[in-house]
Amino acid sequence: MRRFNKVAIIGVGLIGGSIGLAIKNRKLADKVIGIFRHRSTMRKALRRKAVDKAVMDMAEGVKDADLIIIGAPVSSIAALAWEAARFARPGAVITDVGSTKAHVVARVEKLLGTHPVSFIGSHPMAGSERTGVEAARDDLLEGSSCIVTETAATDKADLARVVSFWRSLGARVAVMSPAEHDDAVSFISHLPHVVAFSLAGSVPVKDIEYAAEGFRDTTRVASSDPDLWADILLTNRTHILKAAGSFKKRYDKIVAAIARNDRRGVVRELTAARRNRDIFLKRVHGIKKG
Amino acid sequence: MRRFNKVAIIGVGLIGGSIGLAIKNRKLADKVIGIFRHRSTMRKALRRKAVDKAVMDMAEGVKDADLIIIGAPVSSIAALAWEAARFARPGAVITDVGSTKAHVVARVEKLLGTHPVSFIGSHPMAGSERTGVEAARDDLLEGSSCIVTETAATDKADLARVVSFWRSLGARVAVMSPAEHDDAVSFISHLPHVVAFSLAGSVPVKDIEYAAEGFRDTTRVASSDPDLWADILLTNRTHILKAAGSFKKRYDKIVAAIARNDRRGVVRELTAARRNRDIFLKRVHGIKKG
Repeated sequence: MRRFNKVAIIGVGLIGGSIGLAIKNRKLADKVIGIFRHRSTMRKALRRKAVDKAVMDMAEGVKDADLIIIGAPVSSIAALAWEAARFARPGAVITDVGSTKAHVVARVEKLLGTHPVSFIGSHPMAGSERTGVEAARDDLLEGSSCIVTETAATDKADLARVVSFWRSLGARVAVMSPAEHDDAVSFISHLPHVVAFSLAGSVPVKDIEYAAEGFRDTTRVASSDPDLWADILLTNRTHILKAAGSFKKRYDKIVAAIARNDRRGVVRELTAARRNRDIFLKRVHGIKKG
Repeated sequence: MRRFNKVAIIGVGLIGGSIGLAIKNRKLADKVIGIFRHRSTMRKALRRKAVDKAVMDMAEGVKDADLIIIGAPVSSIAALAWEAARFARPGAVITDVGSTKAHVVARVEKLLGTHPVSFIGSHPMAGSERTGVEAARDDLLEGSSCIVTETAATDKADLARVVSFWRSLGARVAVMSPAEHDDAVSFISHLPHVVAFSLAGSVPVKDIEYAAEGFRDTTRVASSDPDLWADILLTNRTHILKAAGSFKKRYDKIVAAIARNDRRGVVRELTAARRNRDIFLKRVHGIKKG
């Protein structure tokens, strides 16, 4: 992995902070600069030593950076990318960590036009329902999956640099189009959130005290930030509605089998579901740390 | 807690084995006997030291036991209770760990009639998608919730003994009718399983390799045993269908808000869901070990 002179991270929360810690620990850059909007989060990031230097000025932060990582929610990525590009040196590469890609990448590419700064969309699929640099871990991305997007406008050399950067943090990287990304994550990330929020929202408060590990895990992601997730769900609307329809069909089938007391039908559905989870455990979890 | 002379455990798997380990470590009985159907599971339980003695004969196992715990799936509890009662000494108390209660308790009470052995339905709500004595832990019930059921036929003194037994293993105990139990767990345990199985079953295999922690946790219980869960779902059909309808209403509402791009509506739904999960974290998780 070619080292970077200077990496700038805009938004040093759970993901941005974890990336900062990982870059520092693996000595992948001479300097990691954090760019902040609020003094309170800046202080937390410095206390956590997630960045070498912290600034509140975009121009100062991105100056001379060869890699700029936007660790902000999907709703602010495009504006931040444009702001960063204005002050970045020619040849710099900007990437992000947003959970939806088609919406974000199209907006950024339109804003940047022929600007001599490259944008490569990324989605490192690690995280948690927690937010903030306090929850950051230098090994968050180790063994996780990271999708990097490619479009007609993508510079191949910059794409390769970003792919190699995520690999150097321990991620398994797949390259696909923004639409392919949005389709895949609608099923394996966004739909689970919709389902978990629906489940947590439908349980009567009086019964909650009897809840145990099953409820805890099935609804864990329903502790995620509602504003952040509203933006993710709405910027990937088309794919999520397709995934939601697919879930509902399966759910209706299982519930109907229960309703007609069809033991064989229930077992068949549960077995098919467990087979998918076995594939997950074998393909993903077996090689994921922790 | 009054100590027991002899506790017999019929079915020494994850739960039965954990109970055996806990009784032994807390010295709540002079002797813990495991009753087995298969030599292979008997050997595993002895290797794990989950019981003091292991037998394959019901008469020999329950003889002189003052407490008999049935750690078997819901479909076999009634037959095992009847078999145990035939050989148990008068005054012995039989309890179980089944996930549904109305169906089980009604069948056992009908079978036992005026037999001088008492049956008290229990549901310690601890466990995991894993099965078998290999996964047993002596602290499995610590801080967990346990529902004990009471009916018109229930002997008050025996009920008190069973309640006090579960408390001595570290569980928080609530007493309610079998129907109240089935209603409560339909929402907080059975529905999460239906939802997790539906989710795992609806994800396209090609996307599974990108799945991360969100998918892992939301679908964890879909690795549960399909036969065991078919019986649980079918013996609590009425309540589960009610809970399933409630989930679907909430799910449809969230999906509809996404479909009409109603950001405020989505945020409102997600916030209400997160509030319920906050209640769970405060009421249950805060006092649950691990």
